[in-house]
Amino acid sequence: MFTKQSFQPDWCEKPPKKKSYRSIFKWGNPNEFKHPNSAWYEMIKEEFGLTDEDFEKPQSEGNEKVEIDQKIKLPKKKINAFIDIVGEKNVSTDDYSRVKYSHGKTVDEAIELRRNLVRNVPDIIVHPRDKKDVLKIVKYCNKQKLPVYIFGGGSSVTFGLNTPKGGVMLAMGTHMNKLLSINEQNQTATMQPGIFGPAYEEALNNPPKRFNVERQYTCGHFPQSFEYSTVGGWVVTLGSGQASTYYGDAYDIVLSQEYVTPAGIIKTHDYPGTATGPKINDIMKGSEGSFGILVELTMKIFRHMPGNRQRFAFMFPSWDAAVEASREILQGEFGKPAVYRIADPEETEVGLKHFGVQGTPIDSLVNLRGFKPMKRCLCLGTVEGEKDFTKHVKDHIAKVCKQYGAMTLTGFATMLWEKTRYKEPYMREDLMDYGVIIDTVESAVTWDNLHRLHQGVRSYIKKRPGTICMTHASHFYPQGTNLYFIFILKMMDLKSYRKFHDGILDAILKHGGSISHHHGIGKLFAPLMTRHLGKEQMAVLRVLKNHFDPNNIMNPGGHLGLD
Amino acid sequence: MFTKQSFQPDWCEKPPKKKSYRSIFKWGNPNEFKHPNSAWYEMIKEEFGLTDEDFEKPQSEGNEKVEIDQKIKLPKKKINAFIDIVGEKNVSTDDYSRVKYSHGKTVDEAIELRRNLVRNVPDIIVHPRDKKDVLKIVKYCNKQKLPVYIFGGGSSVTFGLNTPKGGVMLAMGTHMNKLLSINEQNQTATMQPGIFGPAYEEALNNPPKRFNVERQYTCGHFPQSFEYSTVGGWVVTLGSGQASTYYGDAYDIVLSQEYVTPAGIIKTHDYPGTATGPKINDIMKGSEGSFGILVELTMKIFRHMPGNRQRFAFMFPSWDAAVEASREILQGEFGKPAVYRIADPEETEVGLKHFGVQGTPIDSLVNLRGFKPMKRCLCLGTVEGEKDFTKHVKDHIAKVCKQYGAMTLTGFATMLWEKTRYKEPYMREDLMDYGVIIDTVESAVTWDNLHRLHQGVRSYIKKRPGTICMTHASHFYPQGTNLYFIFILKMMDLKSYRKFHDGILDAILKHGGSISHHHGIGKLFAPLMTRHLGKEQMAVLRVLKNHFDPNNIMNPGGHLGLD
Repeated sequence: MFTKQSFQPDWCEKPPKKKSYRSIFKWGNPNEFKHPNSAWYEMIKEEFGLTDEDFEKPQSEGNEKVEIDQKIKLPKKKINAFIDIVGEKNVSTDDYSRVKYSHGKTVDEAIELRRNLVRNVPDIIVHPRDKKDVLKIVKYCNKQKLPVYIFGGGSSVTFGLNTPKGGVMLAMGTHMNKLLSINEQNQTATMQPGIFGPAYEEALNNPPKRFNVERQYTCGHFPQSFEYSTVGGWVVTLGSGQASTYYGDAYDIVLSQEYVTPAGIIKTHDYPGTATGPKINDIMKGSEGSFGILVELTMKIFRHMPGNRQRFAFMFPSWDAAVEASREILQGEFGKPAVYRIADPEETEVGLKHFGVQGTPIDSLVNLRGFKPMKRCLCLGTVEGEKDFTKHVKDHIAKVCKQYGAMTLTGFATMLWEKTRYKEPYMREDLMDYGVIIDTVESAVTWDNLHRLHQGVRSYIKKRPGTICMTHASHFYPQGTNLYFIFILKMMDLKSYRKFHDGILDAILKHGGSISHHHGIGKLFAPLMTRHLGKEQMAVLRVLKNHFDPNNIMNPGGHLGLD
Repeated sequence: MFTKQSFQPDWCEKPPKKKSYRSIFKWGNPNEFKHPNSAWYEMIKEEFGLTDEDFEKPQSEGNEKVEIDQKIKLPKKKINAFIDIVGEKNVSTDDYSRVKYSHGKTVDEAIELRRNLVRNVPDIIVHPRDKKDVLKIVKYCNKQKLPVYIFGGGSSVTFGLNTPKGGVMLAMGTHMNKLLSINEQNQTATMQPGIFGPAYEEALNNPPKRFNVERQYTCGHFPQSFEYSTVGGWVVTLGSGQASTYYGDAYDIVLSQEYVTPAGIIKTHDYPGTATGPKINDIMKGSEGSFGILVELTMKIFRHMPGNRQRFAFMFPSWDAAVEASREILQGEFGKPAVYRIADPEETEVGLKHFGVQGTPIDSLVNLRGFKPMKRCLCLGTVEGEKDFTKHVKDHIAKVCKQYGAMTLTGFATMLWEKTRYKEPYMREDLMDYGVIIDTVESAVTWDNLHRLHQGVRSYIKKRPGTICMTHASHFYPQGTNLYFIFILKMMDLKSYRKFHDGILDAILKHGGSISHHHGIGKLFAPLMTRHLGKEQMAVLRVLKNHFDPNNIMNPGGHLGLD
């Protein structure tokens, strides 16, 4: 029908239809797409034993208009109570909103929505205008014992937005998305939680006149979900940005928080350090809406000096060498890189295909110099900060990498990566259109357990025939890092997929990893919490839950494993 | 009787008598002393309107042998239960031990012990040999509802060791003082909590062969109490070391902990970062023995490269200039100093006297160059880490200091300071021997509130005629610092002193400071906790307290304001 050389699938280039299922599960900007290149396409066919014919017609694209038959259980009188608080236009009860505001980007959700399957929806969506609205809503819901769920940017990959108990969903991004102030002396910014990454960063890079700010700042937090996640979401799920090795995780960047809980308002101080007993500010971080609703927060900000950014990329002869060099860099006490990433051999090969390097003269050169496929490992990163500092750190990184046998690839590879850093998830839709899943799990690990965890999880994934498994480490600390496993497989049966995925989590725990480095817990990992943390620690979390939320109205139905 | 020039008080040079009150309240090594120099002596006489005659004879030195009339309320049968657990020689019931192990270095305690006044003592002191002993002790005490107190190094200045409910005191430093392992890959050390600073640092600097360690390490934590405080104490009271600006506070340095609580054992993971809900590791930090007993902990360690240390010292024309330069240094993104300190005008003058600079040609030179007494401010510090890094950071600090009008004093002043860094508290005894109190309070503050807090607290203290008040900042963050107030006054009446001291705390809270940056809360600041944190946050701490310790046996009687 087509010659092998010329055929490329007719990857979807149309924005999803308005009000369709696809418009809910599609990643990111409706008008943006990123397709597998031809090398990737060939790889996928080869790995999964597919032919061009399998890519002639997409399956279950989810283009249908959202229609559900779940009745609104909330009586009119109660709906009116919310209308009284926020106004009629800030209460949504239509089918589309109920599905949209209760789904994130978990693969399971995409699989089901493609088939027009909807399990749980809230009765209504309420769009609070400010923290006073939230206070009234929480008071009312607590009195009426109505479940309250919270929607930030909708990028959860852990069933973080699932509403098993129905009730009320608060959409925090609709109105509560404002930057309130920049304090240039303290280098902090105070905001409402529903502000999205790009709006926040833009306001810091080019501060609006009303803030009377002299310098440019950066938030320092750039998760892959940056464009479609909120600052509040970063904090309550303990996210990490791609430059976390220098700037810290959301956990480190948030200075103070204000929550509305059924037990009252918790507003923490913004002291940079104190010794006044266990810090309530810490207790609230990572609570994922189970204790209360984050309504305001103050984040540390950093001087924005993009002109000083240094980029580097290296090819290591082996994973061992890449890991050891990275440890040396993180423990060397000479300053830390901002972005710092190493890819294992399989990710390196897939990456070279992805960036179109495989088969080019550069590839041959690297090969000739003894950096063999399925041995060699890519490393890339940036240094940020003051000008001499970035040069100093880059030079020392280069020195260490050379000591461990790496060759430099110049900063060009890093610039390529920077261009597509937020775009990778867009490929998910293309692959799923033809029955192929791409998904990720990630785990924190200390250096001394890195290889055991890597091999343990990898060998479980690779035991399944026809499964691509790429691993990288991308958030570094002197004591260890994270391992980020990306796997691609031909499968669209949810039950089988869940079994396979559960096996990965089991392998992580068996091999001493944490069940989440920065994706959070949600309802997906919740069943593993007791196994992971032990019943004594879970008892502490439950005591806190019960204190803040005695009627179990906050994010009920299994979130964090608390109920 | 004596000529003014020649008279110097006969400062005590004798180690305290064995078993005396003085041996309990005297700071540090019994055989070490540090006396006010003649410039200080003159200053004190002048400030307080004293004459040489007032220094002829010391008052209430506390040389008497400890004897108390508090009966042991614990019946023999229960004492035997402890003997069964730890062995006879690890249970003390003598008067001296009961006083020694229930007193720290709070000024109030010294005033009372000098007069042989003892309020609260435990019935017995138990010296657990390991964490199994602690588990048995806590189980037994919980069943019998016996109060349990904990003694680490005994350096508390917050009534942290006071035992209002009697019962059992656990002495953690007697046996549970061992370094258990150094993990060179992870750069961590695991230890029992009762290990003292010098033993810990020595083992990291020169690792014992059995640990199979190649490099030298440092703990990075050097509080003024370093020589007489334990690592466990640093963590449970949220201490800060003099090099915290680079290495972080104890809060940042501790990676994982194991506690024995009445509700069971809490043993946290050592992942360098996770997103698995609110971190129980954080909840335990700063709990000051109110939730349970720290029995093992893993600390981050750092490469020890003393040869790379850079030292600097500057004189600023004003406090404003010193503060602004410091903020620029902390926010400049060029790497941070390790030790970094600035002294306000009064501390600068007193410091110049103290170091014997006042009246020398250096003093004249500084004066001539326009750095006027009671305007000028001293800044000193060090940079640690990799060689080029320390040079780079020092150069940039020098550049910033010059921009703010400072003149360099070379690193010599810093070397002087380093030599006496742990010795300053020894002067307390000399002064108190003649009825003069030297005491400190400290507070965390953001940059934008620094001057208000400084002036507010200072003006309260200086309102009292004849009171020296020196202030420095010594723990820096991009968002702010601490203010450390040292005050000297002629007073030995405890009731008046408590009133004056309470006024300082009131001034701190009124002017927006925290009630503790790194001294902890203990029972001294506990009454202020609700005012400081608010009742909602206190309710959270109480819920945790009640969970871990439902019978209120752990450090009962007002600690942290929890009961």
